[in-house]
Amino acid sequence: MTGRLVIAGLGPGAAGMMTAEVRDALDQATDVIGYGPYVARIAPRAGLVLHPSDNRVELDRATRALTLAAQGRRVVVVSSGDPGVFAMASAVFEALERGPADWQGLDLRVLPGITAMLAAAAAAGAPLGHDFCAINLSDNLKPLDLVLERVRLAVQADFAMAFYNPRSASRPHQFGAVLDLLRGICGPDRLITFARAVSTPGQQIRTVALSQATPEMADMRTVVLVGSSRTRRIGRFVYTPRSA
Amino acid sequence: MTGRLVIAGLGPGAAGMMTAEVRDALDQATDVIGYGPYVARIAPRAGLVLHPSDNRVELDRATRALTLAAQGRRVVVVSSGDPGVFAMASAVFEALERGPADWQGLDLRVLPGITAMLAAAAAAGAPLGHDFCAINLSDNLKPLDLVLERVRLAVQADFAMAFYNPRSASRPHQFGAVLDLLRGICGPDRLITFARAVSTPGQQIRTVALSQATPEMADMRTVVLVGSSRTRRIGRFVYTPRSA
Repeated sequence: MTGRLVIAGLGPGAAGMMTAEVRDALDQATDVIGYGPYVARIAPRAGLVLHPSDNRVELDRATRALTLAAQGRRVVVVSSGDPGVFAMASAVFEALERGPADWQGLDLRVLPGITAMLAAAAAAGAPLGHDFCAINLSDNLKPLDLVLERVRLAVQADFAMAFYNPRSASRPHQFGAVLDLLRGICGPDRLITFARAVSTPGQQIRTVALSQATPEMADMRTVVLVGSSRTRRIGRFVYTPRSA
Repeated sequence: MTGRLVIAGLGPGAAGMMTAEVRDALDQATDVIGYGPYVARIAPRAGLVLHPSDNRVELDRATRALTLAAQGRRVVVVSSGDPGVFAMASAVFEALERGPADWQGLDLRVLPGITAMLAAAAAAGAPLGHDFCAINLSDNLKPLDLVLERVRLAVQADFAMAFYNPRSASRPHQFGAVLDLLRGICGPDRLITFARAVSTPGQQIRTVALSQATPEMADMRTVVLVGSSRTRRIGRFVYTPRSA
């Protein structure tokens, strides 16, 4: 097979946060596949077919990408941020596992991107400057009890934390439950940063004490960063010291 | 003050993994400060002063950068990977906290980069495709007991894990202790990936079962990725499914 599949991270939004190798892969693509708003970030040109799709059809999208690559196309699957962090890379490998054996001979590469939590951390200072974890709060993928248990263990380990997909209209209560848990075990002064639409013109970065945090401060375009016990403010920044 | 300080991530090594905004910041710099091997990645040019320094002098380096920026220079502090992940950003904020109050008026920005664990994950497939944590194994910064306790809690939470700075000549026994702990609580079949010199010509990616992992598989240029209980192989790749 002469086709090629690249799973590429576009970064969080700003063109300046894309890597050169992702730009090159897009320049050489015949087909770009992804969730509509991410595909909309790619400039149309002759010879390039854009395939925008709805949210929550990751496996369909991955299967379509593999099928086109097996037909000899040069396909790029685009994710926002990094494709390996709560994004399309795992979905493509799941589809690869379910598909025909000869798909495993495809030229397949994953190109990393700037993931939302690291762009958010940079905008806020360095709140993930020591040991940290990343948790997807979406309960499409796991039950709330498991989310809460992971958060509890992460606090016990004194990790700083990043929460992806904290809140949506279909599950408005979940993030509130996480905040309640955190207030109970971290106390009122633990710092929490709400980073919305990071690196776009609408970027909003807001750091408050846990006692002042409300579920409404997050939406699905927000990454939430919770400090460790050592995280502190310096001027307009928030950071976690290197030793902890 | 008209000076400016940018703390920039160069990515893990390949020029193609640098972002456009980091490239722009370097093009506009009057001074580049960092650990010698990272500064060596910057092409010399007229009007640019390169300040390479030894390892383990992060606070001195940060203080020097702030001092030069306060004198009106356009300073870029470079880190490999992402400056906010076990790198220079926290050191600069520590120096800022200890320094004169007027330093807080400086134009200071952090520009994210592709951190080693995400480049390693992309090269291996998608082993960090669900909830995960990042732990710095360097015991310059915390006692081994605390490292082991964090690893134990991370396994209990069923996080995939990335270990930075797993091993050096001055502390050869530490990573062995972590491997012993992991074998005891994860069993022999858990997948572990050793990613050395990621994205450089000398890149080596090797995934083995825990039962076959030895401390000698890691050195200070290696990032180690430990799968969750759900992480599995598909062909030459290793990935963690999206739901767990």
